[in-house]
Amino acid sequence: MGRVLVQVMPKPEILDPQGKAVAAALPRLGLAGFVDVRQGKRFELVVEGPVTPEVLAQARKAAEQLLANPVIEDVVSVVDADAEVPAGASA
Amino acid sequence: MGRVLVQVMPKPEILDPQGKAVAAALPRLGLAGFVDVRQGKRFELVVEGPVTPEVLAQARKAAEQLLANPVIEDVVSVVDADAEVPAGASA
Repeated sequence: MGRVLVQVMPKPEILDPQGKAVAAALPRLGLAGFVDVRQGKRFELVVEGPVTPEVLAQARKAAEQLLANPVIEDVVSVVDADAEVPAGASA
Repeated sequence: MGRVLVQVMPKPEILDPQGKAVAAALPRLGLAGFVDVRQGKRFELVVEGPVTPEVLAQARKAAEQLLANPVIEDVVSVVDADAEVPAGASA
């Protein structure tokens, strides 16, 4: 089974009330070092076989037509979740 | 300005109604190749300076205490957003 990872964020110019709420709550947890927080969406799209270029193209189409609202959101990335190698991952 | 990328997903055993709704809608867009969709959250935490190990530790604490609901969600990754190099990124 392959997985495509799609990440969507609010456009920079769009007010992000959820992000602002989180940013305001962090100091109450003693975490005062963060100057801003933005909240978006993360999708995992599962396919039967491997993630081929055709699958990535279909996932991008899904992202642009359904997963992101083009008026207020940007599709940040569409990648093979299992090929992604986050440098310096602390997870 | 540094950015920490925090990714949160519903626990595998938890029902994901939003993901199910997206999975059901995709065939109507002619995108029938996806067998499942899961929807989580993506946060960008902005800091004044660079992303140091201390900043990543603070971001992980924020993720575990505020950004993710530990009962139904898992913190998938906490990484320096600018150090992340998704292999095969098509974005």
